[in-house]
Amino acid sequence: MHDPQFDAQGNLTHLLSTEGLSRETITRILDTAQSFLEVSDRNVKKVPLLRGKSVFNLFFENSTRTRTTFEIAAKRLSADVINLDVSRSSTAKGETLLDTIDNLVSMHADMFVVRHSESGAPYLIAQHLHRIGRNDVHVVNAGDGRHAHPTQGLLDMYTIRHYKQDFSALTVAIVGDVLHSRVARSDIHALKTLGVREIRIIGPQTLLPAEGERLGVHVCHDPRKGLVDCDVIIMLRLQNERMSGALLPSAREYFHCYGLTPALLALARPDAIVMHPGPINRGVEIASEIADGKQAVILRQVTFGIAVRMAVMSLLAGTHAGTQA
Amino acid sequence: MHDPQFDAQGNLTHLLSTEGLSRETITRILDTAQSFLEVSDRNVKKVPLLRGKSVFNLFFENSTRTRTTFEIAAKRLSADVINLDVSRSSTAKGETLLDTIDNLVSMHADMFVVRHSESGAPYLIAQHLHRIGRNDVHVVNAGDGRHAHPTQGLLDMYTIRHYKQDFSALTVAIVGDVLHSRVARSDIHALKTLGVREIRIIGPQTLLPAEGERLGVHVCHDPRKGLVDCDVIIMLRLQNERMSGALLPSAREYFHCYGLTPALLALARPDAIVMHPGPINRGVEIASEIADGKQAVILRQVTFGIAVRMAVMSLLAGTHAGTQA
Amino acid sequence: MHDPQFDAQGNLTHLLSTEGLSRETITRILDTAQSFLEVSDRNVKKVPLLRGKSVFNLFFENSTRTRTTFEIAAKRLSADVINLDVSRSSTAKGETLLDTIDNLVSMHADMFVVRHSESGAPYLIAQHLHRIGRNDVHVVNAGDGRHAHPTQGLLDMYTIRHYKQDFSALTVAIVGDVLHSRVARSDIHALKTLGVREIRIIGPQTLLPAEGERLGVHVCHDPRKGLVDCDVIIMLRLQNERMSGALLPSAREYFHCYGLTPALLALARPDAIVMHPGPINRGVEIASEIADGKQAVILRQVTFGIAVRMAVMSLLAGTHAGTQA
Repeated sequence: MHDPQFDAQGNLTHLLSTEGLSRETITRILDTAQSFLEVSDRNVKKVPLLRGKSVFNLFFENSTRTRTTFEIAAKRLSADVINLDVSRSSTAKGETLLDTIDNLVSMHADMFVVRHSESGAPYLIAQHLHRIGRNDVHVVNAGDGRHAHPTQGLLDMYTIRHYKQDFSALTVAIVGDVLHSRVARSDIHALKTLGVREIRIIGPQTLLPAEGERLGVHVCHDPRKGLVDCDVIIMLRLQNERMSGALLPSAREYFHCYGLTPALLALARPDAIVMHPGPINRGVEIASEIADGKQAVILRQVTFGIAVRMAVMSLLAGTHAGTQA
Repeated sequence: MHDPQFDAQGNLTHLLSTEGLSRETITRILDTAQSFLEVSDRNVKKVPLLRGKSVFNLFFENSTRTRTTFEIAAKRLSADVINLDVSRSSTAKGETLLDTIDNLVSMHADMFVVRHSESGAPYLIAQHLHRIGRNDVHVVNAGDGRHAHPTQGLLDMYTIRHYKQDFSALTVAIVGDVLHSRVARSDIHALKTLGVREIRIIGPQTLLPAEGERLGVHVCHDPRKGLVDCDVIIMLRLQNERMSGALLPSAREYFHCYGLTPALLALARPDAIVMHPGPINRGVEIASEIADGKQAVILRQVTFGIAVRMAVMSLLAGTHAGTQA
Repeated sequence: MHDPQFDAQGNLTHLLSTEGLSRETITRILDTAQSFLEVSDRNVKKVPLLRGKSVFNLFFENSTRTRTTFEIAAKRLSADVINLDVSRSSTAKGETLLDTIDNLVSMHADMFVVRHSESGAPYLIAQHLHRIGRNDVHVVNAGDGRHAHPTQGLLDMYTIRHYKQDFSALTVAIVGDVLHSRVARSDIHALKTLGVREIRIIGPQTLLPAEGERLGVHVCHDPRKGLVDCDVIIMLRLQNERMSGALLPSAREYFHCYGLTPALLALARPDAIVMHPGPINRGVEIASEIADGKQAVILRQVTFGIAVRMAVMSLLAGTHAGTQA
């Protein structure tokens, strides 16, 4: 089947998932991000690559944090950014998603950054744009349901590459609510493409996917076993709604079993890095002393995230060096 | 009586209504819009005509769609755009509308784009600006109560001119809730000024204005009669609140009688165009196959709308060629 | 104790309060503001002093008016402005205030404009930035609890200097709910530093601070005594919640005793100016004829306020001439 992320010539047209991206494509995105890191340190933090382009933030699911990172990235590329408060807009008046898209395309939109609670919504938009022959309009998936959050996946890869250089010898642990996590899914696809030695997913049975082994990862319920000799530990955010539900007894209980403490971290390799997509729940997923400690690279992830989003936007818009698959 | 849209020298200072605009003024706006259409197709979709100007979106009634079109138009003219969430602002704290305006003028506002549920609110603001001697500050009515929505009226004229060139031989049908529609009112004034041969308003008795004939239009309750040989069909949006009220039995019933279907459209001239201000209710005002069909120009209206709003803003700000009445 | 507003070299790094600012620092801010007043009158109202800088509006307490003034000031300095709807953001998801700040700093924020219902929140942020060694990131207090609203205090000083030039001979009356007013507190500190002859606070016992005399001001419950021979009258806004509470009988009663009427104003010096931070409650704190009269300078305060905020932002960012204490 044709991957809707690429056009007929194999150029990256949309970023919908880390699944389907070749090692070369991922590497090109990370290399481009590296060149943008320097821009954020300049006195004037702007480049004109997207000047005159209209980027629409379409957040059907509210996320101030993620929207802000895309807004900053787009503004540093000199784009015009329009935030649509979709929950209050025409969609609320009964207009279909694709009619909304058609209208924005008619306003000469160049890029949609889409977050949606339904898995697949960004695909639907990308397919529609293809159907109406508008391959010059691009979609970036900013998180869809439980499915994917590819820019988070890519910034995680950037972070790991920054600290560990070579992926082939690494053991990476992903800890927490893997079942409901689009971040975990995007990380796993990218890590496998980049060829890490071993991926372990660690969490209570109720929060790990049943098909774990089929994904080619090691499933583990006991972090005291799973974290042994890890190079990279990716902690996942625990959604509050899980804690009040049937899936977990309580936040305190969760922290007791799966929260990252100095004792647990000591099981990993001494140079292991600790990552988290944020926002962190101190004392739930992670002990404060770890979050603020030397091995945590959580805030560096945020910095890298702006550069990665700038890279994705400029590569999609074709204003940077092309990305043939 | 003095038309508050014009200053003492006859220059267009505010856009409040299509009523009172001469054929020359309308034509100048449409011609200017035409020159902006090309800007939206450029790689860098910006012109510096409003650089350094502060445009305030004052939406006392929420409308993400319309606000977005003005925001895009202003940004493509390089203006600084400030969206005021008026429902949460000082007005909510008991400040009067004109005190809010005085404050924003003191912040060196250059233009107000105003939507208000009360008919006449933009006039009140324009008159106040005149009284305090600030003819350099401009008002664009983005829809006031049931009264007027002049930029929609003008973009509708642009669309008709684009497809039909000459207005004098045209029969135009406006179908639906004409009674509550500011779009219909703005269209009728402009169409009469531009000299169309015949205007027909079509809808159930409860949704047509009692003074219909006095407006110089033909009133018709049966679309099977009213649509015969029309050149232009303007479908109006049916507000949800009408359907649940006493004015209409149900959406299904409405569609059965007044929804535009292939059978009804076949009664019009074969080259008739179908227009709608959006957002459309598929299967209520219009059958999906018509909305997506060859005769529908609904999405072109959206594109033309950006250009028309850019034209209005630049003409008012006097940064484009002047508009003596 | 070290004043967190200044760095080790004595440069103004944050604006948290008018308390602790020397007469020289205040004067430098007002002089810089004066140079910006002219910018707002230009055809292109922009200077490139903050180009490429990222200014974050962090309004934990909603205030469309104040946020707008900072947004306009930052945009006229060519900054990128990001409005964070903090009530809907990560903080709402349980993230701590300082974790939010750390994240935004990691996105290369240059300045935070902070409003918070808790006194001291901007100090907390400034201290944290100092602790993590980021003196290149600046905080502007846009109002914290009952504590301070320094840009309002400074624009009030600008207004008084504009009309009265010399502070040393002035009698200034502050009328209303002084107890709960951060504006009053910021004004009093600045007025004392600038050396006015006399400050009087006037209001009902329930709305004046018990420590009034200790602040070095004259406390007065009867405006018919307090306003006699004043040069400057600063009316405070009466919060609606006070009127419905136990502190005040009713708005009508309040106006009868403390509302500024022509009869009361006649007691002051004939060239006295009337100020108000806005938004005004006509007929509660102030009679409409006074608000619209010749002695009111309320709208000029708004104009000066933009210039003062531009001055503060450019001085903090170090893009204007420096401000050693």
